[in-house]
Amino acid sequence: MSAPKKVVLAYSGGLDTSIILKWLQTEYGCEVVTFTADLGQGEELEPARKKAEMLGIKPENIYVEDIREEFVRDFVFPMFRANALYEGQYLLGTSIARPLISKRLIEIAAETGADAIAHGATGKGNDQVRFELAAYALNPDIKVIAPWREWNLTSRTKLLEFAEAHQIPIAKDKRGEAPFSVDANLLHTSSEGKVLEDPAVEAPDYVYQRTVHPEDAPNEPEYIEIGFEQGDPVSINGVAMSPATLLTELNEYGRKHGIGRLDLVEGRFVGMKSRGIYETPGGTILLAAHRGMESITLDRGAMHLKDELMPKYAELVYYGFWYSPEREMLQAAIDLSQKHVTGTVRMKLYKGLASCVGRWSDHSLYSEEHVTFEEDAGAYDQKDAAGFIKLNALRLRLLAMRDRRTAG
Amino acid sequence: MSAPKKVVLAYSGGLDTSIILKWLQTEYGCEVVTFTADLGQGEELEPARKKAEMLGIKPENIYVEDIREEFVRDFVFPMFRANALYEGQYLLGTSIARPLISKRLIEIAAETGADAIAHGATGKGNDQVRFELAAYALNPDIKVIAPWREWNLTSRTKLLEFAEAHQIPIAKDKRGEAPFSVDANLLHTSSEGKVLEDPAVEAPDYVYQRTVHPEDAPNEPEYIEIGFEQGDPVSINGVAMSPATLLTELNEYGRKHGIGRLDLVEGRFVGMKSRGIYETPGGTILLAAHRGMESITLDRGAMHLKDELMPKYAELVYYGFWYSPEREMLQAAIDLSQKHVTGTVRMKLYKGLASCVGRWSDHSLYSEEHVTFEEDAGAYDQKDAAGFIKLNALRLRLLAMRDRRTAG
Amino acid sequence: MSAPKKVVLAYSGGLDTSIILKWLQTEYGCEVVTFTADLGQGEELEPARKKAEMLGIKPENIYVEDIREEFVRDFVFPMFRANALYEGQYLLGTSIARPLISKRLIEIAAETGADAIAHGATGKGNDQVRFELAAYALNPDIKVIAPWREWNLTSRTKLLEFAEAHQIPIAKDKRGEAPFSVDANLLHTSSEGKVLEDPAVEAPDYVYQRTVHPEDAPNEPEYIEIGFEQGDPVSINGVAMSPATLLTELNEYGRKHGIGRLDLVEGRFVGMKSRGIYETPGGTILLAAHRGMESITLDRGAMHLKDELMPKYAELVYYGFWYSPEREMLQAAIDLSQKHVTGTVRMKLYKGLASCVGRWSDHSLYSEEHVTFEEDAGAYDQKDAAGFIKLNALRLRLLAMRDRRTAG
Amino acid sequence: MSAPKKVVLAYSGGLDTSIILKWLQTEYGCEVVTFTADLGQGEELEPARKKAEMLGIKPENIYVEDIREEFVRDFVFPMFRANALYEGQYLLGTSIARPLISKRLIEIAAETGADAIAHGATGKGNDQVRFELAAYALNPDIKVIAPWREWNLTSRTKLLEFAEAHQIPIAKDKRGEAPFSVDANLLHTSSEGKVLEDPAVEAPDYVYQRTVHPEDAPNEPEYIEIGFEQGDPVSINGVAMSPATLLTELNEYGRKHGIGRLDLVEGRFVGMKSRGIYETPGGTILLAAHRGMESITLDRGAMHLKDELMPKYAELVYYGFWYSPEREMLQAAIDLSQKHVTGTVRMKLYKGLASCVGRWSDHSLYSEEHVTFEEDAGAYDQKDAAGFIKLNALRLRLLAMRDRRTAG
Repeated sequence: MSAPKKVVLAYSGGLDTSIILKWLQTEYGCEVVTFTADLGQGEELEPARKKAEMLGIKPENIYVEDIREEFVRDFVFPMFRANALYEGQYLLGTSIARPLISKRLIEIAAETGADAIAHGATGKGNDQVRFELAAYALNPDIKVIAPWREWNLTSRTKLLEFAEAHQIPIAKDKRGEAPFSVDANLLHTSSEGKVLEDPAVEAPDYVYQRTVHPEDAPNEPEYIEIGFEQGDPVSINGVAMSPATLLTELNEYGRKHGIGRLDLVEGRFVGMKSRGIYETPGGTILLAAHRGMESITLDRGAMHLKDELMPKYAELVYYGFWYSPEREMLQAAIDLSQKHVTGTVRMKLYKGLASCVGRWSDHSLYSEEHVTFEEDAGAYDQKDAAGFIKLNALRLRLLAMRDRRTAG
Repeated sequence: MSAPKKVVLAYSGGLDTSIILKWLQTEYGCEVVTFTADLGQGEELEPARKKAEMLGIKPENIYVEDIREEFVRDFVFPMFRANALYEGQYLLGTSIARPLISKRLIEIAAETGADAIAHGATGKGNDQVRFELAAYALNPDIKVIAPWREWNLTSRTKLLEFAEAHQIPIAKDKRGEAPFSVDANLLHTSSEGKVLEDPAVEAPDYVYQRTVHPEDAPNEPEYIEIGFEQGDPVSINGVAMSPATLLTELNEYGRKHGIGRLDLVEGRFVGMKSRGIYETPGGTILLAAHRGMESITLDRGAMHLKDELMPKYAELVYYGFWYSPEREMLQAAIDLSQKHVTGTVRMKLYKGLASCVGRWSDHSLYSEEHVTFEEDAGAYDQKDAAGFIKLNALRLRLLAMRDRRTAG
Repeated sequence: MSAPKKVVLAYSGGLDTSIILKWLQTEYGCEVVTFTADLGQGEELEPARKKAEMLGIKPENIYVEDIREEFVRDFVFPMFRANALYEGQYLLGTSIARPLISKRLIEIAAETGADAIAHGATGKGNDQVRFELAAYALNPDIKVIAPWREWNLTSRTKLLEFAEAHQIPIAKDKRGEAPFSVDANLLHTSSEGKVLEDPAVEAPDYVYQRTVHPEDAPNEPEYIEIGFEQGDPVSINGVAMSPATLLTELNEYGRKHGIGRLDLVEGRFVGMKSRGIYETPGGTILLAAHRGMESITLDRGAMHLKDELMPKYAELVYYGFWYSPEREMLQAAIDLSQKHVTGTVRMKLYKGLASCVGRWSDHSLYSEEHVTFEEDAGAYDQKDAAGFIKLNALRLRLLAMRDRRTAG
Repeated sequence: MSAPKKVVLAYSGGLDTSIILKWLQTEYGCEVVTFTADLGQGEELEPARKKAEMLGIKPENIYVEDIREEFVRDFVFPMFRANALYEGQYLLGTSIARPLISKRLIEIAAETGADAIAHGATGKGNDQVRFELAAYALNPDIKVIAPWREWNLTSRTKLLEFAEAHQIPIAKDKRGEAPFSVDANLLHTSSEGKVLEDPAVEAPDYVYQRTVHPEDAPNEPEYIEIGFEQGDPVSINGVAMSPATLLTELNEYGRKHGIGRLDLVEGRFVGMKSRGIYETPGGTILLAAHRGMESITLDRGAMHLKDELMPKYAELVYYGFWYSPEREMLQAAIDLSQKHVTGTVRMKLYKGLASCVGRWSDHSLYSEEHVTFEEDAGAYDQKDAAGFIKLNALRLRLLAMRDRRTAG
């Protein structure tokens, strides 16, 4: 790889990416463009702008953007149409944000004539893979700089020394090491490392930042109604909302009722297992609600096919293959299935539980006439079941005859 | 089908199967053998024996058996090794009991020289299919009588008239119609029909019989430790237990903490959707615990393959293909994966939630040395990740180059 | 089912469907509309019209249509995009024609105010299922009459007696029984039954009607070039053709070179195994050509996903679920993948073999620069492979360490 | 990686691996153990022993072994039970040999106290991955040396200079560069590179080394009967044979009749596409024969599940994950299905075609009684089909009603 001349850095404004910023300037002598995005992580963005300026970035090279609506509309909601769960449990909150960040990095590189991008993910995690696969898929010639895989600032001490040597301000609470590492966006907050590294030990209470403890949640359940159109939530209690607004609202319901905590050991794409604490308050409600909406509007054949495709879809998102033909193929299949996933779901929220307790839709496939215990009005002839069973059983009977014959 | 001469009836001792018993005697003039099983449904069996005697069944034709251990060991536990969920949610509590009942019906038919079996499932549900597919798979020549598909006792009134005409005692509370219908065994209780037929309306509280309301559960969480060996739970809090004992115990924990309620609309194999209320207290704890155990003992490749196979496995169990080559093939794959799923899981139980909060095992694949945020001791070279990403990205880069070329 | 008043019959003009025509008139006393389609079966249609008139059908109730283009464009080609093979071998020639016939039957029923359709498929085969599933999916209220499942004309003798009694002309060669039964359309000819019923015995030469014996094919190979656009063939040797014309042409190449014979025992949807002799001359060339075209234009991820989905797709087509949400979902995924399957394939045809021996495309993903044995120009850094392998191996190494630890 | 002290080299005796041998001695100063295996590649092994001695390897460090029986019995046959085809076409001849070579390298390393292995695969291909994944899976601590990824002998000229400088004899025909590269074993011969690098151009005749041209094959077909037991071939024309002997024999039949040629562009695991010419004479016959045997002995459910699992299985073998839990899980499922795949298949061989034309077995599931066109003896009631179709159609009808309702 020839040396990069201009690099777009995914910049949070924190200590680590500030060090990366300086390191890029000093190590590669290249011009740096910063990109700071509001993905709903709950931090002010303007301090990042100021800090970038202070570190010598030209105003026209500082990008600060609120991309929450695009995030939810084009990434989170399509993924929830799939009911995606990685390894049966994880709602993919970190995974789904990375492709969007890479997309903006690549777009900004094109706008600013940069030939490289840089990110602050380490060499042990999944995020480096997600950032870079997305970047290469969108621009095959882009250079990617991952300082954590390259530099020799391999200890906290060296990092702080570098920061001091380059006049990077160090907040007091960053002098010591954080007891765990956090990633957050509108969909979730994840925590990992350090105090969480022994999977036998329950995560301490203070790790949870996004939800109240179920024990501290209200003693009365709360009911909400979520409206869906073609697979996506569009309203809460009858009030229409934009995607990001709706997810923000759901997060607040989830936070309040202690919903969406997950303590998980998962298999990383890079090969080892890691333990994470995830809080996905709104997403956990949304998954249950979407399943509930599908339960009356989605045909059994479509649902079972979706269920069979889901693990592969979730794996692709987790591994970072958002911009791959196979993810897009699965999405096409899934999206087609959502045409009639329109209606309303009633959810009960209580101390960590989000349960679908009612669902209705003009598009419902549920037919009381067919299922009723009452005397039939002719919609269904029970005698048909005899033939249905007989022919389904035929191959099993032929097998049994064969087994009897060959055993004898 | 020629007329049956001797039929083994799955007999609960209740009104409906007593009517069937009499109807078989009168309609077919055949000898009836009754089979009453304790699957953990929580009812006394001896009254069924007495009632069968009263209805004229010879003592040697009355089979009353406790098959709870076989049920849990050979049916429930193998299914839980698969983490089976039908349509993403249902723990298959009814489905998994049917093949065992059929197996015993067929075995008793062989012992008693019967040429037919009979069951009390209706012509609209899944259970008829499950009973009969299992029966045909085990004895291809067996005759199956499903009175509900044949007779003209198609209303409550006609049933009661028939009962009275044949001196079948009718309990007072059976005069009126039950507000919903119930199936229960050691794994779960399901309720459906009548008051539950409108899926928009929340199920009334009195439907739930197996678990306390989460609102009424203890205000303090309770922790338990479940020990696993090769994929199956073997102990609770260090006390070894037989399969049925262990599940009974887990059920009690689940009951107390309001765990395992599910309000579901599902797609039946016979084609329509139906709504059920399921209570699976112990099973819900077990699924979460098993996932937790697998999370540190199962390789990623094995886990992802299991997750991809699971929907098919669950569909087969739900549809009644327990005794089919494809279910057995999937089981062989799944069972092989469980060789090292041995260790202990710590579960937190609280107001409907069953969460894995700790797990440890001599067979753990989790390696703190590999995942740690601390400086590396050489177990993992972060630079390897660069090559890993580069080659994973290559095809995506070739695609992007192609797209650019053909778009121009 | 209430008695039908007006029925649209899939009418070939042959003896069997003429008997059905009369039987419908006499048994149900209903008005009959005939539908005779040219699907490329190689028979004149006008005699069917005349015969229908002779049997008393009003001219406005006689539909005779050439639907070959629709058949190939909307059914055959979409299926070939999937590379569909049932049970690894069968090109689904019969299966794919049935939904189109049903579609026209339902459309004609709507036009003529008919409340029923009828077909001449027997109660043992797959075709009854395919006809009827498609019909019910397109019109849930339609009545379907399958005379072979209903009537008592259960022997050749009874059929001929009925024909004579109703003045249905019987061709001399129909007096005796045919030695096997045939179905044909533009995609294939299938033969089954009678002389083919022992799967141990090689099919006699005279069964093959659509292709020359490979032994009689030309002693020199012939080369053709097939052009593709977005997954569908559009030209042969540079000459653009409509779908049906192109398939007709390919059939002629295949016929001449003895290509596309298959002697197969397959598992029917109704439960038993049957043996068929299939001749799919053009389709066999097309499958190999399409695979060849995909080999340079389809990304590995897309191709592997397609390969995993294919058996399910083929099963759905074979079982008759063309008009089902899950087939349409799979089709959406497959069609998306075909966007760049554009280019040319060179095929060698010789004595039963159709081999792709060259392929080129502006949309090619093949990069000589990346794959060459020559010294690299920098497109690919072999050292990347070391990291790629190391991280792919990591979980296997962790497994091996675990196995060593637990074995000790 | 610390420097290796003793390395086991996969040694063919050819120029390239002789250079590697010397390079290991000079570059790493380590002791070299050579392993030369007869996998059926058709070369004498003793010259390799002599050459190793000449290059200074101690006799006790020279391993020369005939592992053909193990290769066919434990690797080729299990893979053929799966009907494995990579990307729908490739019989995986190279892929399947690599794990066995690695297994022996690791075993010899254990015997000789070596701490490393080395192989001659390049950094662009799949074989490096296959060798190394297998090695790491069998010994997580092994060091792997892949000289082609490390050294600077990156041109033919440099290689020859190195050889001359180290007194490695160079055969005359190795002075110039080979027009393509070859890999061979008992299952297949593959050719790639150089003259084959343009996928548009037909491979020249001289590339094919293992089979006669179909045009030169006998003008008369030949029939053979292959006997199977539990999924594996055990006899030809009634003569029982060991696995390797049987495959050798099948290869001779295939060679003579020009069977098993494939010209393929495939997607490599390392990310680019490559073009290969494969000759798999016996394997091509075996695949068709095995499919034929399964067609009457394997239940439809088992077969369809196998077909769905196959692409994943083939991908795992191709990528080099032979020793992975997921391949072993799939194998367990597949092997279970083969219990009754016992009987005889009759194959017709003619000018490149290997066709199953007859099959019989005591374990057959084919029932003439059920499938016959003759009047039924009661084995199958055609009226059952009506109910079977009605219930299969129910969900499609409910969909159609919903579509009509929501469209209006």
